[in-house]
Amino acid sequence: MQEVGAAVEAALDRLLPAVSHLSLEKRGGTAKLDEAMRYASLNGGKRLRALLAVASSDLFGVPRERSLRVAAAIEMLHAYSLVHDDLPCMDDDDLRRGKPTVHKAFDEATAVLAGDGLQSQAFLVLADTATHPDPAVQAGLVVGLAQASGARGMVGGQAIDLAAEDRTAAGQPLSYEEITDLQALKTGALIRFSAEAGALLGGAGAAERAVLREYAAELGLAFQIADDLLDHEGSATELGKAVGKDAAAGKATFVGLLGLEPARAKARALTNSAKSRLSSHFGPKSMVLQELAEFVITRRS
Amino acid sequence: MQEVGAAVEAALDRLLPAVSHLSLEKRGGTAKLDEAMRYASLNGGKRLRALLAVASSDLFGVPRERSLRVAAAIEMLHAYSLVHDDLPCMDDDDLRRGKPTVHKAFDEATAVLAGDGLQSQAFLVLADTATHPDPAVQAGLVVGLAQASGARGMVGGQAIDLAAEDRTAAGQPLSYEEITDLQALKTGALIRFSAEAGALLGGAGAAERAVLREYAAELGLAFQIADDLLDHEGSATELGKAVGKDAAAGKATFVGLLGLEPARAKARALTNSAKSRLSSHFGPKSMVLQELAEFVITRRS
Repeated sequence: MQEVGAAVEAALDRLLPAVSHLSLEKRGGTAKLDEAMRYASLNGGKRLRALLAVASSDLFGVPRERSLRVAAAIEMLHAYSLVHDDLPCMDDDDLRRGKPTVHKAFDEATAVLAGDGLQSQAFLVLADTATHPDPAVQAGLVVGLAQASGARGMVGGQAIDLAAEDRTAAGQPLSYEEITDLQALKTGALIRFSAEAGALLGGAGAAERAVLREYAAELGLAFQIADDLLDHEGSATELGKAVGKDAAAGKATFVGLLGLEPARAKARALTNSAKSRLSSHFGPKSMVLQELAEFVITRRS
Repeated sequence: MQEVGAAVEAALDRLLPAVSHLSLEKRGGTAKLDEAMRYASLNGGKRLRALLAVASSDLFGVPRERSLRVAAAIEMLHAYSLVHDDLPCMDDDDLRRGKPTVHKAFDEATAVLAGDGLQSQAFLVLADTATHPDPAVQAGLVVGLAQASGARGMVGGQAIDLAAEDRTAAGQPLSYEEITDLQALKTGALIRFSAEAGALLGGAGAAERAVLREYAAELGLAFQIADDLLDHEGSATELGKAVGKDAAAGKATFVGLLGLEPARAKARALTNSAKSRLSSHFGPKSMVLQELAEFVITRRS
């Protein structure tokens, strides 16, 4: 996982626009934007989505130079969503991955633009012969990422989350089923696409794509429950962000809805199901993906 | 132009996510986001980019059902850029096309998300067999739009514009060459792509693509100079937005740099060059594109 993480980092470094110092000197330039895009994406996070994309690609013997490009594109998309989520008008967070958020380290306008630029860069990376020589695969990846991230995916989930805050303020917090549906969009859609990306790159059939999507759906939900558990139990130092914030904000959380022990049991059950699903379909070659599912609920940050 | 404008409107209405009232009732839902995306894109603007895409496609006999999809995708991208540009942390505008801006009519968080969702929807529309049956053309359109809108296109131009404000505040406003370079990115890149899109859809050769790009580069610069002239001369009622704002904000404008009459003469010369370029390469069948270039500098809003 560390080796792949370093390779993803190198791919991001290569695929992000270089910092254009020349134009900074000449006319104000894009250097600040370039630096903000790099600050938002490099040296950060668990790279869960990238690891899913690479490990699912490995299942089908996809060359790493291809899967790493898709992994980098997904991480750019994910990074953009974090930059915009952290904005004062959204979650208003000052700290992300132990560093000041982009609008704190730069400014709000640059944060909006850096997010926007990261989104288009992600699609640019996908629609390229270096990602896959077959344009049909490129187009399939573009559609998959656009659906996972758009108004009926991540962005839609974020909008539902905003609406849920109004409901909570009005004394009608979300139910367990509703928060599960919300997370399936807000974080689940991109996680499912990350696992499915390997099947798209590898030209796998519909059955294999479905197994990977179902695995990722369970992993994604387990990830969110684990996030709530960490928010409840973890320390700010380990997490690199404020703790107890969701509960304090009156947001419905899995821990709040289910209770501490049932939430732990649910995350464990989801992880076990995700692992056995892979094991029975792909056998031992799915070991890395199984370990990723285990990592998701045992991590401390 | 009116007929095509209505067809673009219908295409946008069809290709934007429908307003999901069911989910609003059920769990907060995406209805507010859906409505904001529609509010930002429908019933608005001159549709210059859409008209360029359709008219350039007509040159090569591209079926309208294809060119209208590309036109709608470009308008979605353009609408997202306006929504984000209008945010309080960017240009802080309350009025756009005679209506309250999205963050005024809805709220800031919804404006950020609506812009984000419009961007991914644009790519989703392009990477579709209904846009073109050949995935290589789909991928080419995705690359073209991502380049035109990203960190080395529109978003980069916006970042340079922000940096230019700091320079102006420090008593070093942009020169004519610098503001020309800035506009070539900020608005020019998407206008050039709009005209080139017809050549991509029509499978035209490199020479024809180059002619269309050069025509659009001149048209785009003429458009910006005309914008400055309107900001200087027009009325808020005709424009549907505040006038004199750029000059008051100390932004470098073409009128400020060149003077009123030389700016008018420059816009006219660019338009004439754009028209004769098309006429000599494509002949009478380029009449609509020539009229568009004329419209750009004779419009009153």
